[in-house]
Amino acid sequence: MSENKPAQGWIIEETSFDPRYIAKGESILAQGNGYLNLRCAQEEGYVGQRRGAFITGTFNKSMEDEVTELPNLPDVTELVLSIRGERFSMDRGCWEDYARTLDLRTGEVVRRLRWTSPKGDVVELCFRRFVSLDEEHLAAFSLELTPRSGPLELVMESGINSRITNTGSQHCTEGEKRLLGGEVLRLCAWTCQSQIPVAIHCVHRFSLPPERALPVMERRRFVNRYSFRLAQGQTLRMEKLACYHTGRDLPFAAPECPAGTGDMAAVSEAGDACIQTAAGRGYDALLAASARRWSAYWEKNDVEIDSPDPLDQLGLRFALYHLNIMIKRDDSRVGIGAKGMTGEGYKGHSFWDTEMFLLPHYLFTDPAAARTLLEYRWRSLPGARRKARENRYEGAMFPWESAWLDDGEVTPQFGAADIATGDSIPILTGLLEHHITADIAWAVWLYYTATGDEAFMDRCGCELLVETARFWASRLEWRGEPGRYEIRNVIGPDEYKEHVDNNAFTNYMAAWNLEYAAGIMERMERAWPGAWANLSSRYNLPDLVQEFRAKRQALYLPVPGPDGLVPQNDQYLGLEKIDLTRYKCQAGVSDIYEDYSQAQMNHLMVSKQADLVMLLRIMPELFDAETRRKNFLFYESRTLHDSSLSHGQHCILAAWLSLEEMALELYRHACAVDLGPNPASSDEGIHSASMGNIWQCVVCGFAGLQWHADVLSLDNHLPKSWRRMAFCLEWQGARLRVELTPERIAVTHLSGRAVRLQLAQTMHTLSQNGAQRAESGGGN
Amino acid sequence: MSENKPAQGWIIEETSFDPRYIAKGESILAQGNGYLNLRCAQEEGYVGQRRGAFITGTFNKSMEDEVTELPNLPDVTELVLSIRGERFSMDRGCWEDYARTLDLRTGEVVRRLRWTSPKGDVVELCFRRFVSLDEEHLAAFSLELTPRSGPLELVMESGINSRITNTGSQHCTEGEKRLLGGEVLRLCAWTCQSQIPVAIHCVHRFSLPPERALPVMERRRFVNRYSFRLAQGQTLRMEKLACYHTGRDLPFAAPECPAGTGDMAAVSEAGDACIQTAAGRGYDALLAASARRWSAYWEKNDVEIDSPDPLDQLGLRFALYHLNIMIKRDDSRVGIGAKGMTGEGYKGHSFWDTEMFLLPHYLFTDPAAARTLLEYRWRSLPGARRKARENRYEGAMFPWESAWLDDGEVTPQFGAADIATGDSIPILTGLLEHHITADIAWAVWLYYTATGDEAFMDRCGCELLVETARFWASRLEWRGEPGRYEIRNVIGPDEYKEHVDNNAFTNYMAAWNLEYAAGIMERMERAWPGAWANLSSRYNLPDLVQEFRAKRQALYLPVPGPDGLVPQNDQYLGLEKIDLTRYKCQAGVSDIYEDYSQAQMNHLMVSKQADLVMLLRIMPELFDAETRRKNFLFYESRTLHDSSLSHGQHCILAAWLSLEEMALELYRHACAVDLGPNPASSDEGIHSASMGNIWQCVVCGFAGLQWHADVLSLDNHLPKSWRRMAFCLEWQGARLRVELTPERIAVTHLSGRAVRLQLAQTMHTLSQNGAQRAESGGGN
Repeated sequence: MSENKPAQGWIIEETSFDPRYIAKGESILAQGNGYLNLRCAQEEGYVGQRRGAFITGTFNKSMEDEVTELPNLPDVTELVLSIRGERFSMDRGCWEDYARTLDLRTGEVVRRLRWTSPKGDVVELCFRRFVSLDEEHLAAFSLELTPRSGPLELVMESGINSRITNTGSQHCTEGEKRLLGGEVLRLCAWTCQSQIPVAIHCVHRFSLPPERALPVMERRRFVNRYSFRLAQGQTLRMEKLACYHTGRDLPFAAPECPAGTGDMAAVSEAGDACIQTAAGRGYDALLAASARRWSAYWEKNDVEIDSPDPLDQLGLRFALYHLNIMIKRDDSRVGIGAKGMTGEGYKGHSFWDTEMFLLPHYLFTDPAAARTLLEYRWRSLPGARRKARENRYEGAMFPWESAWLDDGEVTPQFGAADIATGDSIPILTGLLEHHITADIAWAVWLYYTATGDEAFMDRCGCELLVETARFWASRLEWRGEPGRYEIRNVIGPDEYKEHVDNNAFTNYMAAWNLEYAAGIMERMERAWPGAWANLSSRYNLPDLVQEFRAKRQALYLPVPGPDGLVPQNDQYLGLEKIDLTRYKCQAGVSDIYEDYSQAQMNHLMVSKQADLVMLLRIMPELFDAETRRKNFLFYESRTLHDSSLSHGQHCILAAWLSLEEMALELYRHACAVDLGPNPASSDEGIHSASMGNIWQCVVCGFAGLQWHADVLSLDNHLPKSWRRMAFCLEWQGARLRVELTPERIAVTHLSGRAVRLQLAQTMHTLSQNGAQRAESGGGN
Repeated sequence: MSENKPAQGWIIEETSFDPRYIAKGESILAQGNGYLNLRCAQEEGYVGQRRGAFITGTFNKSMEDEVTELPNLPDVTELVLSIRGERFSMDRGCWEDYARTLDLRTGEVVRRLRWTSPKGDVVELCFRRFVSLDEEHLAAFSLELTPRSGPLELVMESGINSRITNTGSQHCTEGEKRLLGGEVLRLCAWTCQSQIPVAIHCVHRFSLPPERALPVMERRRFVNRYSFRLAQGQTLRMEKLACYHTGRDLPFAAPECPAGTGDMAAVSEAGDACIQTAAGRGYDALLAASARRWSAYWEKNDVEIDSPDPLDQLGLRFALYHLNIMIKRDDSRVGIGAKGMTGEGYKGHSFWDTEMFLLPHYLFTDPAAARTLLEYRWRSLPGARRKARENRYEGAMFPWESAWLDDGEVTPQFGAADIATGDSIPILTGLLEHHITADIAWAVWLYYTATGDEAFMDRCGCELLVETARFWASRLEWRGEPGRYEIRNVIGPDEYKEHVDNNAFTNYMAAWNLEYAAGIMERMERAWPGAWANLSSRYNLPDLVQEFRAKRQALYLPVPGPDGLVPQNDQYLGLEKIDLTRYKCQAGVSDIYEDYSQAQMNHLMVSKQADLVMLLRIMPELFDAETRRKNFLFYESRTLHDSSLSHGQHCILAAWLSLEEMALELYRHACAVDLGPNPASSDEGIHSASMGNIWQCVVCGFAGLQWHADVLSLDNHLPKSWRRMAFCLEWQGARLRVELTPERIAVTHLSGRAVRLQLAQTMHTLSQNGAQRAESGGGN
């Protein structure tokens, strides 16, 4: 899929059209701004194409037997070209001089080719498109078409198509179609269950007047049909500007009604005005405004890598591109989907991916965005409380999959086929994967540590910590025989294993949650009086502190056995070992499920993803260096990395353990999750958490960033072949620039408050006026 | 699309794969049995493909803003073949030796080709399929695949796909997927609003055991993935047997609940048993059983034509094929869709097409089927009464578009774009096209005339006649000035014209309906005591008779003016004449709407279809021969035949008027409605009424069949170039064989009661024991 131009490091380029990569290309080259994302489907249609337009927060339930998901909204990307009666398609006739590029600097995708039709007509085509980072409602497209073999007749159909479904499930009404002022096509539809009004507008501009323009309305399709006669060598330029508005847009929301209005008139009028403005400016001016925003983003967020393998740089910039289009930084009513908004995969739902894999990136580059993500969890408390009640627990039991604020748990009930029984495998994560509640509490701690944001703690943080701890206090099970609390019948991060007891990651995170909440509650009356007033009106906080401490003390926490191994759970170290070689080299995902049923998987010593290793990464101080090393190597050998969450976290551990070659290899695996050659890896969208992981590999792994004991520390684990790496960080109100070479690590204070940090074991204080720069020699 | 083998006259053959004809081919080659119809989509996918599976009566409303329609049910026709990693598709690599044939004698479609993959592998493929005429739930498929260039790996995915929609509108829940006994794939889903349980089963059989068989469950898709290694020259044969069952099937219906059960268990168990039986028999045996049914059908229904142009014969057999798969002869809960069940067009709704264009064929070949169709209207009376009440009329006002029995009017509200305003054009037929109510009454008369079925009259016919007449009595408007009743603001058969006054066809049909009902009512007490008891308990029948007669007497009926022309409506003869040449030669349909808005169309002297001509055809005795000729020629010149209902009826008039060349040309136009070269003519399904028209052209036109004055009459209007024509007829309990040559027309009495008939002006009596044969010399 991807080849980069070494000189640039900014271009994702495709130089061949291979039908096997159609859906993957749509995901990887998706464009957006966190409000509106479009998959990069070719304008003409192909089998296997999965056109997609998504707007954050527009969740809807298509039918009674389904769960709420992010709807695939009506499409504006389709363009049907007929050249002397032959439909343009790259799998008809023949093509040459093909290239499709995404320029990460501007967010523009350009596709060029020369096409010879089955009739022998030759045309040059250049398609361009972007979703504006400057005007979030707007997407723009252009086409330049030049006949090269003689004059020809061209017919072009373009407009709005509401036949789009989420893999067959329809979310939108057919809607009302209108042609405004003879040129603007407008479709006004509703989501069928959540009743969100959606207005879509588009308008076309041409460098030559069409011979004919005819509006064509069909069921769920509204296009204009334009006819042209072009001379040989005469270039037609078409621009299509389109905008999306919905009743869930922030301007229509209010504190008392976060879901926004159901007022179609207001929504469609906003679109009427928007499309007029856009039409007045045109593609090039709109692109320039968007590109300026991208430029500002890169100015602040670029991570420079000087490596002999240019993919090392490109992979990270690719991750940063997607990290920017997957988040709506100013809207705390929405989370980040596991595929961002680049596909239908995981239904737009948010998982622990947000807190553990994505939040660190946002926290260290744009702390306000991290706060928005945590506020989303705080605003979702009603659903989490309901889930706890429904499961007979107390406090907040966060949904494994989250959608709209008050949806609660939205994990689907069934997944793929079990090869033994032939039935759908029940999806138990919504019932059993409990650690997410502690993960969210941990993210509150991390945010507070990195920002010292007392207002957030007062309004949201304290409540999140108390309610999550209350869940754990009710969740622990007393076992008379060993005389301790245990946590039985869960799924840990390793989702190959269901119904396990005492998953080490879960138990340690629960213990930490109880302990940290107790500590915060003791400081609450003084430090966060608003939270104190609110929570003490509901609970006897001193009693809760006692309960949390007592339970945490009596909670079983697995420790290394005689062989030095910490058991991932009570069962794991006694399971059957099988040869994992062929699955370690698997082409796809979940290949092992083609050989073993879910029941059998529970008896094999094989992990899907970082689980005990995740504990080593989040709480490195728990065990001594030798234990960390031993456990990492053991679990790495049993892990198939059958999850995009995995390679990156193993990479960090490998870097910290100075397993340098392994670390670099794992980094490249992480980059290959979406950019690699597997044609089906990303059909349903890119892997959001993987983008966060790629950033974490470099910043937390190779630059050794740690946040433990409330201190920012950095260390030099630069891969041997890399010549230089540089990036910026935000920490406790300061903005810092970090630069690594094989010889040294240097930190420059760019702006903000004075901060202390640890560079390769040595503490430094940096400020604007005092020492602005700290340096340390080569690490390891 | 179609080329026939002259020697045969039974084969619809396609010898080239042209992407423009994909959807049309699916319609034309559709297979079915009146219960289950499948569009003939290629097993592999293409852009523009519109897979379709329809089961009669399973009407559902997808969303609130839509009307009830026949759902496109989950698909079993898809087969994804991967040959050494290359997806089989005719628009990839290259193909040769291609032919796809529908054998009308057996109902089997066979597709053969030799394909060279993009990697250079050569395979021979032969796909076969049929929908059983013997076991209505069953469809069967087979594939023979032979590697020709070397050994190869083959992966085949096949199963059930519920991503199918009606052009983007989903009707079915995702459903429950189960693999039964390790080999039967079952999907159990519900229609989302009408809550009809639908169970779909399939099973695969192979001549070689697959190396691997893996069930794959995805969202709305459940397939088995089979892997094979084939040696060069080694042929793999695959059979796929599939069956559909729904809660609306006749066995689940009862008089008190015609809609059937909502019991999924009963439905899925019926399918479990059905698929086991089918699997035990296999493709060849199942095909043989179905082919025997087809053979019996042709034995009874074939119309033999000996013409120098073999398409004349093929076109008629093609019509007879579709006339057999569009009707469920034993189910009076369902009508016939305007596209049969060969596509989504017109949403599976029934129009006047059934009574005026289709019913004559069934009546003269299978009178019981005609009764079933009329019983459907009788069972739909509640919806017709409701429509009358809602429009402030009395009696039964039949819906312009009908779906399930109690749905009432289901005409959609909006159609295509108006080129002047850019808005959707409101569809007014449901409000204004009133003649359908008289058309149904007329069909009751025709059925009674042809069968003398007193039991039908007693149970259904009398009630239909009284209720339809009551509608007209309430519909007439008294105009003081001319001192007469008029019928204003209607749409006649010519749908180019909205809001017209005194449409001649409508007024004459209404007058006839009032008159005929009055006559029936006067005989009712004696002839049909059951109907009398029923209706006289509700109405004062003698008063109604008086009212009907009085109103009919005072109803304005247009007559020829000084120029001999009968005005189609009050406005028509004063409208603006434009040059119609380019629209007369139109490639598509409704081309004129690309130049004129609906408002403008109302002012042009142009007709969409037979309107006044339809009156001349239904009531030829109204006017003298010269007036008939004059009006036919005049209206033919103003008619664009922008409806499949039109050519055939004009053909009959032309034949009757001895306009022999024009008649043959119009017949061939009627055959070309679906079989002609226009690539988009039939994308949304074949034209049911056109199939009835083709039969009427030959039997009513060229063989001069008339039923006027309750007498069967025949006349010889054989086209000059035709050498012979022969067919069978049912009439008043007798079965007759009719044979025409240029020289003579001969009728043979085959079985049943003695009947009188008129041959070219001379009356004959034919019976089993007396005169069995009547002959007359050449006609015209």
